[in-house]
Amino acid sequence: MTKVAILGGTGYTAVELIKILLRHPQAEIAAVTSRQEGTPLVSESHPSLAGRISLRMENLDADRLVERGIQCVFGCLPHGASMSTIPGLLERGLRVVDLSADYRLRDPNVYAQWYGESHHDTANLAHAVYGLPEIYGDEIPPARLIANPGCYPQTAILGLAPLIAGGYIDRKNIIIDSKSGVSGAGRTPKLTTHFPECNESLAAYGVGNHRHTPEIEQTLSDLAGEPVQVIFTPHLIPMDRGIFSTIYTEPHRSLTDSQLLEMYREYYRNAPFVRVTHQIPATKDSAHTNFIDMTVRVVRGKILVLVAEDNLVRGASGVAVQNFNRMFGYHEKAGLL
Amino acid sequence: MTKVAILGGTGYTAVELIKILLRHPQAEIAAVTSRQEGTPLVSESHPSLAGRISLRMENLDADRLVERGIQCVFGCLPHGASMSTIPGLLERGLRVVDLSADYRLRDPNVYAQWYGESHHDTANLAHAVYGLPEIYGDEIPPARLIANPGCYPQTAILGLAPLIAGGYIDRKNIIIDSKSGVSGAGRTPKLTTHFPECNESLAAYGVGNHRHTPEIEQTLSDLAGEPVQVIFTPHLIPMDRGIFSTIYTEPHRSLTDSQLLEMYREYYRNAPFVRVTHQIPATKDSAHTNFIDMTVRVVRGKILVLVAEDNLVRGASGVAVQNFNRMFGYHEKAGLL
Amino acid sequence: MTKVAILGGTGYTAVELIKILLRHPQAEIAAVTSRQEGTPLVSESHPSLAGRISLRMENLDADRLVERGIQCVFGCLPHGASMSTIPGLLERGLRVVDLSADYRLRDPNVYAQWYGESHHDTANLAHAVYGLPEIYGDEIPPARLIANPGCYPQTAILGLAPLIAGGYIDRKNIIIDSKSGVSGAGRTPKLTTHFPECNESLAAYGVGNHRHTPEIEQTLSDLAGEPVQVIFTPHLIPMDRGIFSTIYTEPHRSLTDSQLLEMYREYYRNAPFVRVTHQIPATKDSAHTNFIDMTVRVVRGKILVLVAEDNLVRGASGVAVQNFNRMFGYHEKAGLL
Amino acid sequence: MTKVAILGGTGYTAVELIKILLRHPQAEIAAVTSRQEGTPLVSESHPSLAGRISLRMENLDADRLVERGIQCVFGCLPHGASMSTIPGLLERGLRVVDLSADYRLRDPNVYAQWYGESHHDTANLAHAVYGLPEIYGDEIPPARLIANPGCYPQTAILGLAPLIAGGYIDRKNIIIDSKSGVSGAGRTPKLTTHFPECNESLAAYGVGNHRHTPEIEQTLSDLAGEPVQVIFTPHLIPMDRGIFSTIYTEPHRSLTDSQLLEMYREYYRNAPFVRVTHQIPATKDSAHTNFIDMTVRVVRGKILVLVAEDNLVRGASGVAVQNFNRMFGYHEKAGLL
Repeated sequence: MTKVAILGGTGYTAVELIKILLRHPQAEIAAVTSRQEGTPLVSESHPSLAGRISLRMENLDADRLVERGIQCVFGCLPHGASMSTIPGLLERGLRVVDLSADYRLRDPNVYAQWYGESHHDTANLAHAVYGLPEIYGDEIPPARLIANPGCYPQTAILGLAPLIAGGYIDRKNIIIDSKSGVSGAGRTPKLTTHFPECNESLAAYGVGNHRHTPEIEQTLSDLAGEPVQVIFTPHLIPMDRGIFSTIYTEPHRSLTDSQLLEMYREYYRNAPFVRVTHQIPATKDSAHTNFIDMTVRVVRGKILVLVAEDNLVRGASGVAVQNFNRMFGYHEKAGLL
Repeated sequence: MTKVAILGGTGYTAVELIKILLRHPQAEIAAVTSRQEGTPLVSESHPSLAGRISLRMENLDADRLVERGIQCVFGCLPHGASMSTIPGLLERGLRVVDLSADYRLRDPNVYAQWYGESHHDTANLAHAVYGLPEIYGDEIPPARLIANPGCYPQTAILGLAPLIAGGYIDRKNIIIDSKSGVSGAGRTPKLTTHFPECNESLAAYGVGNHRHTPEIEQTLSDLAGEPVQVIFTPHLIPMDRGIFSTIYTEPHRSLTDSQLLEMYREYYRNAPFVRVTHQIPATKDSAHTNFIDMTVRVVRGKILVLVAEDNLVRGASGVAVQNFNRMFGYHEKAGLL
Repeated sequence: MTKVAILGGTGYTAVELIKILLRHPQAEIAAVTSRQEGTPLVSESHPSLAGRISLRMENLDADRLVERGIQCVFGCLPHGASMSTIPGLLERGLRVVDLSADYRLRDPNVYAQWYGESHHDTANLAHAVYGLPEIYGDEIPPARLIANPGCYPQTAILGLAPLIAGGYIDRKNIIIDSKSGVSGAGRTPKLTTHFPECNESLAAYGVGNHRHTPEIEQTLSDLAGEPVQVIFTPHLIPMDRGIFSTIYTEPHRSLTDSQLLEMYREYYRNAPFVRVTHQIPATKDSAHTNFIDMTVRVVRGKILVLVAEDNLVRGASGVAVQNFNRMFGYHEKAGLL
Repeated sequence: MTKVAILGGTGYTAVELIKILLRHPQAEIAAVTSRQEGTPLVSESHPSLAGRISLRMENLDADRLVERGIQCVFGCLPHGASMSTIPGLLERGLRVVDLSADYRLRDPNVYAQWYGESHHDTANLAHAVYGLPEIYGDEIPPARLIANPGCYPQTAILGLAPLIAGGYIDRKNIIIDSKSGVSGAGRTPKLTTHFPECNESLAAYGVGNHRHTPEIEQTLSDLAGEPVQVIFTPHLIPMDRGIFSTIYTEPHRSLTDSQLLEMYREYYRNAPFVRVTHQIPATKDSAHTNFIDMTVRVVRGKILVLVAEDNLVRGASGVAVQNFNRMFGYHEKAGLL
């Protein structure tokens, strides 16, 4: 049994984490923190948790977390705030799964370029592990700091990994057209996520400048051993959750649908949460689960990969627990089915 | 041709008004005001209007509106702000259709009780006409100031009018269970109207204390000639627009479905926007129109009235134009079909 | 460990049951039946179950179920079909939780009147137990045949039980205004549940004649010891799941909000899945759970009860497992959190 | 004033057509046909039209349409049925705007390949005009038979026309990733459009084999003077209406955003329903209108075009009326604003 804390308990990834961890046979939620006034019950902020968790949200520092016997902290703070808080946790020996973007980009200059502020914890950045278990599985068990991957990047990276790793496609001619439910935008009300604005509507956003672009390219370049460049276009869809990515690539040589499906199944044969399917996946079939579903097709000489996941579970809190399981030696699926 | 202005152009009722007035053969939108910085194009705030209106939003006072030849002002300001602005307009001879709640409640004490602030324009309040054309039709043509009715109240009042006016039901035993799309909550982002909070969810709100209660009771009491009391429970529904009210009443004597339908059809025979139907109405059938649809049924001795309307058109901007048509002697349907 | 079968595996209640049972520590799904051609994988009909269940849907009779060591059958057949199949199962000693309406109404004449066909298994009907654990909890453990309750009736019955059992309200003056997500209508495509017809729309249906009316009245009458009569009006809401019931009652004497809340908390103090809350519940907070949330308020002398549940879990498959837990002596919450 | 008929009045394109034509100052709907039993009121099939149209749906042949003085017929029949009915209309001198796919593909072999049946009215096919006014505007006025364009193709063709016509991009390397609301699937209930299946979900469909592909290529090839080949991937989105297409192209030479916007504005300077915008369009802003909104951007050397329209108005019935206006010499915008 491992005692864990959730840092920043008011958002959507926090409530998903709590729901998953409440079912986890080897995790005990020992603290949920927040900088809110007072110490409100977690279930006041999240009425869905009434009767399930009796903790209060507290403004706890690293020492207090250590005193409570906590070994692992899940960071649900916004980027920027994460890298201000996490060094203190690591210093006291806590292990951290950080759900923010702060430790995902290895090069602090790339961080500065895309996030508009300089990185001020390059020491820890240097040894952070990008927590995508299907790619960096062996680096996760010993890690002290996991940079939990972004929601969109997981669909893009896992959708492309077999093709990139095998060198089958043009590394400079990749288009990732992604569609996401609105919970991906977080819990802070904005005009763009105000119901009467985004319901019954659909649009692209962040065209050419979405921050998940360098994250996708970093891992794909690792897999290729050479720089990979993508065009990534996200769209906001009037639904709560789910991401669907439609990926277009240019193969070096001709392949059939069955060869591709076979290659994908082989590549993911040990990945319990990747489901390679014959039919086109729908986001509803992976909703509220840690599965990522994908299929691959040849269309007029191009290879298309179609990938679906739940943005809050697989895209954030589920994969965080998958990382936790690897870090602490639990069964990879513990708490996740 | 009448030149009109829209006061407060950034919200949902303003954009609906503009769309209706652009189709109106006898109205010309001569100004749209806003207290925003600069003078942005109306179509910057409402991209749906691109290519349809070239006006800018300006911060205009009453004198400037008069200089432009404007005769009628549609007030789309929040309550409170309305009664600060409208006296100056009336003073300069402008006629006003006010879409806020400021002039709806005849008794300033009732206003103070439900809106939590005292009324500071009781002079004009005294001669304001409640703009529900099917009830106060004769008072509208000469009116200088129309208090445009609330969205919920119209379904409740028109749904009950034939029963109340005819003295068929117990005036103290009326339940109005209403359901509304989210645009009724306005355009300001809030947690309750944040897409991932209210989508795929349903709840009552304002139970026992919604501000439309006294508005409903005032008009029903007028019709009854005695005080009428209602229980009004609104609910927020995950859809853009539409209100559905299910009304439960206690009849004094037994009536059949056909007698009731006949009575309703007779009552509304001269009301071009009330459709009394045999089947149960659905909000979709009156969406984007000025129609209000209703049917009436006897269930186990009680009389049920089922009423549907579009909350933004019939519930606000459409009926405002219907009032304008009566004020300026145009055909009641002008611009509204 | 108890081996169970699911009879009729293609609908929404079946897939929810499978998801719950896959997490249940003492249940093993040993068969899923269907009368479809061939023996398709369960996960072909329900792609969300890919990688989670390897069973095929088979056309199995009672003998084959017994041979497989199955002790409990969950019936997910339509009404009519249920009472043709279930006698054979009971005869061979299988215990049954029937999710259809066939064994819910004690009086076969009432069944005939509301379902339009005569009941042809009155022998088993005589000893069926209505499986609402919070009301008939003691009768469930020994039962051979559980009539699993309807989705709407649970909100109405549990919302009213404390008031009816205590004799606080007029038993002939109860209004239940219910709102349901579309999955309540089942998985067979119809025009009324075709997306472009019911999305962005809202209407009442079954006004005065919905089949859940006698089911509600039967249990409330049991609690009252005298006949109870209700007016029940369901509405179709554009969301996947969730039921919200707004209940209006006439108290015999004056009670305060706090007295009522206290009474409700006391009444449900041993009911782990009933959450009596101070704030108004929203369906989203009980979505995908077996919780039923409620609050109670006095409004202008009437008592209002506001109740929310997930129609597929609490309203059908979750409560079925709660019944199963009681029948087989497992912890009431097993598999349900 | 021109008398028109609508052939096949039960579907979504028919009801949209009726709504538009009721506002058209020079069109009079003189007949709505259907092969349904009896002669139901149009408003029985479409309750939204109650109080607006008193016609009945009748099973009328070409002679009867001529007798009524009808000059133009809007065909809303399914493909296949269209080409069986339209020859008889043309023979009697009626002019036809056909909303089906039957006369869109110039080459009957291409039709047979994509629609799985041979074309049996090649005589009329030979002189049909593809009714995309922004491209074939001059051929429309004299046309006897207009093949009204498909919903998806309009976004693709108009989004690409300036680039293709100017020879700016690689004609063999075009990706069109399109997203559509569910009304695009028609009014016949199916499992894929059953609310609980497609709500809160998102998936691609028709990958590599959607029938709009050859329609897109035919017109783009006309513009290029050489064969153009596209990859077209449609997706089903949980909303009623709206299409958004994200188009990826490979330019021959480097262009800036402003050069592209300027080029697009110039290309469409006389097209009253094409709005070239600086910001990214959202489907909501063109919902229920005949506008098609687009912008164009350079991203990492590729040119992206982002296009939005209402699939039922601009995508079908609105452009049909735009064609009608050109055929009969009315103002292009008549009835459409």
